[in-house]
Amino acid sequence: MIMVSPATLKRQIAEVYRAWGMPERHVNTTVELMVETDLRGIDSHGIGMLPQYEQYRRQGRLNVQPDIQVVKEGPTFVLIDADHGLGHPPAEMAMRAAIEKCEDCGVGFAVVRNSNHYGAAGVYSTMAVERGLIGLAVTGTSQRAVVPTFAREPMFSTNPIAFAAPAGTHDPFSLDMATSTVSVGKLQIARRAEKPLPTGWALNAAGEPEHDAAAAVASVPKRMTPVGGTRALGSHKGYGLAMMVEILGSVLSGSYVGGRDLTTLEPGKYINVGHFFLALDPAFFRGEPAAFTADMDRLIDWLHGTAPAEDGQPVLVAGDPEHASRRLRMAEGIPMTDTLLEEVRQVARGCNAPFLLEG
Amino acid sequence: MIMVSPATLKRQIAEVYRAWGMPERHVNTTVELMVETDLRGIDSHGIGMLPQYEQYRRQGRLNVQPDIQVVKEGPTFVLIDADHGLGHPPAEMAMRAAIEKCEDCGVGFAVVRNSNHYGAAGVYSTMAVERGLIGLAVTGTSQRAVVPTFAREPMFSTNPIAFAAPAGTHDPFSLDMATSTVSVGKLQIARRAEKPLPTGWALNAAGEPEHDAAAAVASVPKRMTPVGGTRALGSHKGYGLAMMVEILGSVLSGSYVGGRDLTTLEPGKYINVGHFFLALDPAFFRGEPAAFTADMDRLIDWLHGTAPAEDGQPVLVAGDPEHASRRLRMAEGIPMTDTLLEEVRQVARGCNAPFLLEG
Repeated sequence: MIMVSPATLKRQIAEVYRAWGMPERHVNTTVELMVETDLRGIDSHGIGMLPQYEQYRRQGRLNVQPDIQVVKEGPTFVLIDADHGLGHPPAEMAMRAAIEKCEDCGVGFAVVRNSNHYGAAGVYSTMAVERGLIGLAVTGTSQRAVVPTFAREPMFSTNPIAFAAPAGTHDPFSLDMATSTVSVGKLQIARRAEKPLPTGWALNAAGEPEHDAAAAVASVPKRMTPVGGTRALGSHKGYGLAMMVEILGSVLSGSYVGGRDLTTLEPGKYINVGHFFLALDPAFFRGEPAAFTADMDRLIDWLHGTAPAEDGQPVLVAGDPEHASRRLRMAEGIPMTDTLLEEVRQVARGCNAPFLLEG
Repeated sequence: MIMVSPATLKRQIAEVYRAWGMPERHVNTTVELMVETDLRGIDSHGIGMLPQYEQYRRQGRLNVQPDIQVVKEGPTFVLIDADHGLGHPPAEMAMRAAIEKCEDCGVGFAVVRNSNHYGAAGVYSTMAVERGLIGLAVTGTSQRAVVPTFAREPMFSTNPIAFAAPAGTHDPFSLDMATSTVSVGKLQIARRAEKPLPTGWALNAAGEPEHDAAAAVASVPKRMTPVGGTRALGSHKGYGLAMMVEILGSVLSGSYVGGRDLTTLEPGKYINVGHFFLALDPAFFRGEPAAFTADMDRLIDWLHGTAPAEDGQPVLVAGDPEHASRRLRMAEGIPMTDTLLEEVRQVARGCNAPFLLEG
């Protein structure tokens, strides 16, 4: 494990993308968003994705010089074609457009088609918050890993929902959640600790609860549950939310669902992920922005002050762990495991980029 | 148990509201939406709410002759003040406005303040679907019953999310879910069956799992869990979604949260619930509406055709149970238990309205 400064991590990722031939403006956008993700402690969606992106590139499933185009635009909305590049630049462009449209209309929304993985949904929803707006970002993904209620096979991925709202003196509310019960990362942690999985995290090929963490991780495809975990605890709600994400992100933009073309039910050459973004201006309803943010502060104070079930574990508000991680990592750097370091070294070597993360 | 025709049920509810002195246009809207809810099988939110509404009226917490006003309006949005009447008429007016605004803008949204219980969120989201649009409806509620992750006391209610999208030949997708793990109704069913509650349905006053169904039902206040049930199964996700609903429904409109004024943290004379509505036109992105609905049909077919975990229990899509119930109840009538019949008889007697539901 070493600690890497945000600046060094940015330089490292940028060197890789330059070696790929990615245009400099896309390099900058992607690097900023990836390192922001690592700063927030969302380790699964920042630098940790680089080996996967490199694999997509080698497989020809990623266009490193995409011609990102606005296909359609109106006063409130924009449709963007990502031309099969990494998702970060078109997603940033889409959320920025939604935010700008808010100025006149109080609302702006954007969809992106022909895209790829875009990192953590929460870095887009919080772009709105920085401008005093409410932000929503959802995305389809290509790796089928989540089994609908009553089914035996995975149809969706972890289809995240990110929703953020500005506060006044407090850090903003920022929910960034997979609609699955847990992430693959949590299965890995249980496997390494040799602990049995609780009922409701994963399923076996017969659709029954899988308690063996090693088997759940090794399963091809993964068979995870929608949030709720089991029918008795409401997995049909997580499944319904995952569908909502597919409808907004994939069907509305005309993209694939779970990596498949809806017409042929087959995968294509490219991944063809779709994203959806919404920005809303609370001042259109509450008048002065301060009326909304003062109420947000009161709501957050109220929740933080709620009697806890256990001494020493206060009640949190969505975003608290990410805000705390960001402060810590801005000061102390971003921790990288030896395994991840080695993976990034291989990526750099494979594309003739310098490796800057020597311990 | 008797079966009541939709027409008779409408007449019965209308007689009660007329006896209260509710204006005829509000009577009609409310009755239509309540009976539509019963037709869909959402028994907890239709005629089953009438005794609660009568109690609110007697307590002076419901204005039966509200002056519903559009407070603010723009090309994409509307803010409505419900003047403390029942939520159905202002909610219907708000969703209708959001739908109309879609014609020009591709999106319309509406918030309602100073409202009350509005029945099932799903009857508003599906208003959009009838016009070929995507619809979203969320609402705060006044009865605190859901305990945030790590907390000991309830702060929210079951804060529902309803999302609907049109299909082509299939019934529309229609998700209408509480953000709690289960409803109070499910606790009642377990109590009557004398079955222990699974871990993750309810908590005791110490914040620990409550397995005694009678104790969970008798608890004042109720202490239910956000969807996910326990921290290990993702209750922080249900809690985060409940907050999202409060922010959109309550904070954006300037209404109470969990029945409390955010400034004083006290309840007021009125309940002051807030609602949020959004309508989106998929044709603005996909061109011809048929491109979107054809893909929705393909997605629904695909899910219905997924291999089931158990023979005889096919994979469902959100809305399937409600569509099936509606067909059945349109043909056979709406079942009413003897208990509910007696409660409605008492309501009618109490306000000198005729009772029309004799078996």
